[in-house]
Amino acid sequence: MVNPVVLVLNGPNLNLLGTREPEIYGSETLQDIELAATLKASDLGFQLDFRQSNSEAELVTWVQESRGRVQALIVNAGAYSHTSVALLDALRAADAPVVEVHLSNICRREEFRHHSYVSQAASGVISGFGPHGYVLALEAVARLLEGVSASD
Amino acid sequence: MVNPVVLVLNGPNLNLLGTREPEIYGSETLQDIELAATLKASDLGFQLDFRQSNSEAELVTWVQESRGRVQALIVNAGAYSHTSVALLDALRAADAPVVEVHLSNICRREEFRHHSYVSQAASGVISGFGPHGYVLALEAVARLLEGVSASD
Amino acid sequence: MVNPVVLVLNGPNLNLLGTREPEIYGSETLQDIELAATLKASDLGFQLDFRQSNSEAELVTWVQESRGRVQALIVNAGAYSHTSVALLDALRAADAPVVEVHLSNICRREEFRHHSYVSQAASGVISGFGPHGYVLALEAVARLLEGVSASD
Amino acid sequence: MVNPVVLVLNGPNLNLLGTREPEIYGSETLQDIELAATLKASDLGFQLDFRQSNSEAELVTWVQESRGRVQALIVNAGAYSHTSVALLDALRAADAPVVEVHLSNICRREEFRHHSYVSQAASGVISGFGPHGYVLALEAVARLLEGVSASD
Amino acid sequence: MVNPVVLVLNGPNLNLLGTREPEIYGSETLQDIELAATLKASDLGFQLDFRQSNSEAELVTWVQESRGRVQALIVNAGAYSHTSVALLDALRAADAPVVEVHLSNICRREEFRHHSYVSQAASGVISGFGPHGYVLALEAVARLLEGVSASD
Amino acid sequence: MVNPVVLVLNGPNLNLLGTREPEIYGSETLQDIELAATLKASDLGFQLDFRQSNSEAELVTWVQESRGRVQALIVNAGAYSHTSVALLDALRAADAPVVEVHLSNICRREEFRHHSYVSQAASGVISGFGPHGYVLALEAVARLLEGVSASD
Amino acid sequence: MVNPVVLVLNGPNLNLLGTREPEIYGSETLQDIELAATLKASDLGFQLDFRQSNSEAELVTWVQESRGRVQALIVNAGAYSHTSVALLDALRAADAPVVEVHLSNICRREEFRHHSYVSQAASGVISGFGPHGYVLALEAVARLLEGVSASD
Amino acid sequence: MVNPVVLVLNGPNLNLLGTREPEIYGSETLQDIELAATLKASDLGFQLDFRQSNSEAELVTWVQESRGRVQALIVNAGAYSHTSVALLDALRAADAPVVEVHLSNICRREEFRHHSYVSQAASGVISGFGPHGYVLALEAVARLLEGVSASD
Amino acid sequence: MVNPVVLVLNGPNLNLLGTREPEIYGSETLQDIELAATLKASDLGFQLDFRQSNSEAELVTWVQESRGRVQALIVNAGAYSHTSVALLDALRAADAPVVEVHLSNICRREEFRHHSYVSQAASGVISGFGPHGYVLALEAVARLLEGVSASD
Amino acid sequence: MVNPVVLVLNGPNLNLLGTREPEIYGSETLQDIELAATLKASDLGFQLDFRQSNSEAELVTWVQESRGRVQALIVNAGAYSHTSVALLDALRAADAPVVEVHLSNICRREEFRHHSYVSQAASGVISGFGPHGYVLALEAVARLLEGVSASD
Amino acid sequence: MVNPVVLVLNGPNLNLLGTREPEIYGSETLQDIELAATLKASDLGFQLDFRQSNSEAELVTWVQESRGRVQALIVNAGAYSHTSVALLDALRAADAPVVEVHLSNICRREEFRHHSYVSQAASGVISGFGPHGYVLALEAVARLLEGVSASD
Amino acid sequence: MVNPVVLVLNGPNLNLLGTREPEIYGSETLQDIELAATLKASDLGFQLDFRQSNSEAELVTWVQESRGRVQALIVNAGAYSHTSVALLDALRAADAPVVEVHLSNICRREEFRHHSYVSQAASGVISGFGPHGYVLALEAVARLLEGVSASD
Repeated sequence: MVNPVVLVLNGPNLNLLGTREPEIYGSETLQDIELAATLKASDLGFQLDFRQSNSEAELVTWVQESRGRVQALIVNAGAYSHTSVALLDALRAADAPVVEVHLSNICRREEFRHHSYVSQAASGVISGFGPHGYVLALEAVARLLEGVSASD
Repeated sequence: MVNPVVLVLNGPNLNLLGTREPEIYGSETLQDIELAATLKASDLGFQLDFRQSNSEAELVTWVQESRGRVQALIVNAGAYSHTSVALLDALRAADAPVVEVHLSNICRREEFRHHSYVSQAASGVISGFGPHGYVLALEAVARLLEGVSASD
Repeated sequence: MVNPVVLVLNGPNLNLLGTREPEIYGSETLQDIELAATLKASDLGFQLDFRQSNSEAELVTWVQESRGRVQALIVNAGAYSHTSVALLDALRAADAPVVEVHLSNICRREEFRHHSYVSQAASGVISGFGPHGYVLALEAVARLLEGVSASD
Repeated sequence: MVNPVVLVLNGPNLNLLGTREPEIYGSETLQDIELAATLKASDLGFQLDFRQSNSEAELVTWVQESRGRVQALIVNAGAYSHTSVALLDALRAADAPVVEVHLSNICRREEFRHHSYVSQAASGVISGFGPHGYVLALEAVARLLEGVSASD
Repeated sequence: MVNPVVLVLNGPNLNLLGTREPEIYGSETLQDIELAATLKASDLGFQLDFRQSNSEAELVTWVQESRGRVQALIVNAGAYSHTSVALLDALRAADAPVVEVHLSNICRREEFRHHSYVSQAASGVISGFGPHGYVLALEAVARLLEGVSASD
Repeated sequence: MVNPVVLVLNGPNLNLLGTREPEIYGSETLQDIELAATLKASDLGFQLDFRQSNSEAELVTWVQESRGRVQALIVNAGAYSHTSVALLDALRAADAPVVEVHLSNICRREEFRHHSYVSQAASGVISGFGPHGYVLALEAVARLLEGVSASD
Repeated sequence: MVNPVVLVLNGPNLNLLGTREPEIYGSETLQDIELAATLKASDLGFQLDFRQSNSEAELVTWVQESRGRVQALIVNAGAYSHTSVALLDALRAADAPVVEVHLSNICRREEFRHHSYVSQAASGVISGFGPHGYVLALEAVARLLEGVSASD
Repeated sequence: MVNPVVLVLNGPNLNLLGTREPEIYGSETLQDIELAATLKASDLGFQLDFRQSNSEAELVTWVQESRGRVQALIVNAGAYSHTSVALLDALRAADAPVVEVHLSNICRREEFRHHSYVSQAASGVISGFGPHGYVLALEAVARLLEGVSASD
Repeated sequence: MVNPVVLVLNGPNLNLLGTREPEIYGSETLQDIELAATLKASDLGFQLDFRQSNSEAELVTWVQESRGRVQALIVNAGAYSHTSVALLDALRAADAPVVEVHLSNICRREEFRHHSYVSQAASGVISGFGPHGYVLALEAVARLLEGVSASD
Repeated sequence: MVNPVVLVLNGPNLNLLGTREPEIYGSETLQDIELAATLKASDLGFQLDFRQSNSEAELVTWVQESRGRVQALIVNAGAYSHTSVALLDALRAADAPVVEVHLSNICRREEFRHHSYVSQAASGVISGFGPHGYVLALEAVARLLEGVSASD
Repeated sequence: MVNPVVLVLNGPNLNLLGTREPEIYGSETLQDIELAATLKASDLGFQLDFRQSNSEAELVTWVQESRGRVQALIVNAGAYSHTSVALLDALRAADAPVVEVHLSNICRREEFRHHSYVSQAASGVISGFGPHGYVLALEAVARLLEGVSASD
Repeated sequence: MVNPVVLVLNGPNLNLLGTREPEIYGSETLQDIELAATLKASDLGFQLDFRQSNSEAELVTWVQESRGRVQALIVNAGAYSHTSVALLDALRAADAPVVEVHLSNICRREEFRHHSYVSQAASGVISGFGPHGYVLALEAVARLLEGVSASD
């Protein structure tokens, strides 16, 4: 049997990780995160498709193209979490569960970061655990794909 | 060396799990959750102190008494998440990291559940993964106690 | 056949009735109300379980313990009507109809008394009729238990 | 001695009862309600004057004309509850107590139905008990006319 | 003649004083404050009844029980200042003047601490002077009990 | 050693005290208050500089001129408390602690009096104790100048 | 030359004047007002067309029918001032200047009376002078019809 | 087979079309619109019932009476679009699809015209095309009655 | 008998009348207005004290000094209407009736001009009639001083 | 003479039509819509330029490039309707009339979909008629290009 | 030909520059700024009239007196930017262009400093460049007086 | 020594300058602005990198790529100023000072243009001076790079 594919989407400026505001975002780079996530995915028997884009349109298109091809999405939409209805609409049209991740605890930052459109389409949200959040998200995906109900 | 103690606090009505609004909260009971969490804690080398109370005062007092005794708190304050400044103040005075858990994705429920006072004192938040959220929270605690910075 | 049990819950400060702000709350005491309600309940063939507490937790717990034991709840949560999400959650998990009572017409008092969380879980609301509101609530319960639809 | 007259006013669309959104308003017609209310009024020694109008002006005028002629008003102003300052002014100028009735529990419906101008002029409010609310309102009127203080 | 009794109520987390967020709340403990207040009370000829509770219900009950027993209340309700309508109701039903105290200047802290329900029932408010605020409050009480009008 | 100078500033209309709305502001005049404050200051070893102005500009200028000359400010800015950013800026630039006083409990008056710009620059606030508030403020100043930390 | 016609429109409940809430609206009746206004109009050489209606539709229609027939409108729309966009639209389509009158000073009453749609279509507003406001409005009309610009 | 009946309702002041604010509403009269609509209806095989009223009550009643008699409603409620909950309730109780029309693009006018209660009961909305909007509405009705799903 | 004195206060920038934004404020100067008002006052047997100031403090002081000296105040506070709580407080302390005047209809101008603090202390308001508003205000004063109740 | 060109722009996720949330958006694909629109355009003598993009920038650029090339725009901007000021600016700079289309009735969906920036630049709006809305929009364009005023 | 006069107005507390909150406002004094501005003005062929006042009235009067005497105004109104409608009115009545300056970037400071009434009367705004902002403002004035349109 | 590089970023629709809404944005084209800015840059010894894009992603990417390559950024983000959190995040991660420019005075335009995310990352803002704003911005940059503190 083929391994499930997990699409991990990273939004604008996440390519700067490690250099941008390290007191908020830490010193690990996106490559470090991808590596850790790949190892975890491998442990869990997943194939990882890890991407970053500064373009709302590209993120929307990647979500659209995931239909029928991936079994779960992990989405850290960065700034677009707070502004993109287009991404919300794309995620609602996806046919796989969505797990939202944020490196920082967005509830403790500026007012305009408290609301996320992505949350409206996500099974669950993991925020504030830094790069480790991606690993937790993969474990959450593993459980979701086991058919264990996450409705509670 | 002594195992770290993790205090898991459950707020009002969580004792009803498995019976209350199962379409939102699932069919597992709080005992089921405690069992799963205990197993996970054991794997991670933690000692678990798992409690539930309907009383805001008792929750506040338990947090106060945890000072110097526990190494981390996992808090699912239920309804008090949204109304208790007293609990926020207690958690801010705690001397151990706090991980917030919600069974359901509170961003997708009634408006008054979107804001949580507990979040203001938490390192990170895990919501929407049902009972499995406690397991993820324990892993998050493990990482936090490893001294891995969760600031990003 | 056994008589239905009606649990009547009274929130904080209602034990002061007759002495507290009589120009708003009147001169009858909670004992007077209990007596009148007991007589009415007796007429209607109900068993009355009439309680008061200043504790949000105790009210929540009483609602929880009512499951499978009482056939209806009459709730005058006093100040907790306006602040307690925990009580709302408990009432939503109850397995019997809820009738909300307020002695005064809360719509004509301070702004913060206009909204009641209890209302979100109640079949109906009776407010402004003083102690007589409990008697009306019992009649409402009688009709609700007759299986007459109250959905309109 | 002459029997007290109770004027029961029904606002717009209440003439459609039994056909309009039965899942909200039930299947009884306004005629059914009038009949039940008439029987109850008779029991209580009241004369009932039961009316419906789609016209805000007509309702206002009926309230005005009630001065000196009726001993109490029961008002289900329907949609005008939420929009008519004119009706509020008329009710404030009435010389008899006002009891407000709503078939459904308006606190659980659309936001714009949560506020009622009528409440500002009413002794008390009964909402959510369907047609039976009129019967309860008549009992409330009976108590109000007994000179029992409803100020609490 | 018997010395007037002054009931001093301290809300949740005030038992942590000296350890909790000392940069905000200072290093004196609640015992230190009680001692200083007792000395001052003694100077003024008052008997002091100094208490702390994490429980909203207990604070409400203590206020209720103060009726006919104490001549003044000094209330530092901590977090419950901002959330407890029940405490406001209890204080309004008290038969002695209320002086509100806050250690910190709540106007300069988080938005949700700017409003206090307790203020609605207090003759006056003293905030921002740390433990010394209790001493000032006792002097204020002394003046209030002298029958000097504090209405201006 | 020279006695510390305490500048007491009174804002618009406080010159009318004793005549203006006595049911709110009492019957003592500003001269009465100055006298009482002078006596108290004398007790505490302070030199009092007591002034009143209807002019926002004059109050701002007095605060500016106090730099290097006075050791503390007591400010009852009256109506300007609620509207003057200029006064806030001047007070922030002062080099002495500021104690805010209000005769009435501003939290219980019109909505627009609930917020005070002066509070943003004050160590502490005393409101609702009438003329006696000035005496309490002087005691607060005495403690502040003793070097006792008022940060809690 | 023909005398100018001034249409005076009175909204809902103004027919109750003299009996309704006399502490707000005074003891003069609408007939008294009409008489005083007629005398004044006569002095000024105007023909008066003085009407009252409880019906929004009738008021709208009267405004529509005034086109080409009246030279000025004086409008006391009562409660409809605050709720009727239809009346605003009709007045905007009128071809004569509009003077708005209110018996009471609406700025000092309930919040919902502070805004008037009629004001958006009026040259000027006179409020708070009781029945005499109609006389002042007639004088204002006289000046407006003299071609004196009221734009300042 | 009988031709479907389409009821076209026009609200307050639409009878003034062609004269009222022509820079907003154009120079065509309501009679012109009726004529154009009648021709179009005839083309589409509809019978047209074209009405105007300044009375909210009359519009409500016409909607009520349309039940079982008309196959579709086209509603330009004018000012009542923004204020009438009664009309919304009537339209929700109608048993035929509703198409909302506005001559002007209400999104570009005053804030209070941006919200329409009628929209809550309408299948679709056509606004900003002047009299031609009625013709478009008739075509929309034709399609709706063809059983083509308009749910997308 | 001595003629009553009417103090007419004009706020900031009214000295520019005739030159400032003539499309809003007209071409008459403040001297023209004073002349017209003096003539009218003379007709009514009043002595006129007509002043203008750009200074909030001066206006406040003039109101204070009017106590016991003038029988009525006419106040066009210009921009201070919208920002000066100090002026409101002074006017509330005045011992003569206050009539508020605005040259333009402030309800039709910028949002921040819709609210006036002066209105809270005024018997009545006249706005939108340009310089003629002062003449109307004098007539209103005449009626107020006749002892005719203006409470309606 | 050359046929007018009509540019039809479709925003993000509209390429998913037929598969995405069919209960809201129906089962027709964007290709179906293009076909139907092409047929209609052909009937009306228009040349159709039908496009879709997930990119805000591309949509903005297409609008810019339309200047001098197309005679009308039909815009269904999807999610960007609610978030894109850039698209509004581009449309305002276009030199051809704009007709806005929405498949669903956006007034009945989530709050954040009620406001559309596109509406600020559109002659008119057609929403809620599904794919047929494009056909209606083409007819609206035909009328707009006939020089018939759409200002009413 | 005479050199143009540029009036530079500085509001409350700007006389404290160099001493007040240097971390926000820098260490240069107002005299330093005047010197730098005078040099720049001299370069540009302007005569500089540089003033500071703590008085809103004085600033208003200076603006009034500038009519016909100065060719441009540079305004740093400090705190009055945020509170003075009187200053806005005076500036609107000025007959020369206005350039607004702020030392700090007011958009990044407290919420109440984000809005400036002065901006409503200014051609342009320069904020955040410290003392150098005055030099930039003079260059902006030079361009404005060259007749170069600043409308874009 | 190498000349500093200044990156000038222009957002969506600025490529239309000279044609789009000339009454707001003037008749100069972006090429005209680039030419004037290049001349000024040359005077100041800067190398200019002048770009425009309609794409939020491209602007974000250009800011990212500027790290280590440019010494200052001048940003006129057009419509994205008001909507792009992504751009704000990129600018915060830049390692060079940012000067914000707007051609028009955005404080005097539509409400939604009053707030700019870019301002949160900018040293200072220049708005309302048309194309000349870019020249002023270059001078501001020159001063910023001189190491002159702009913190005041």
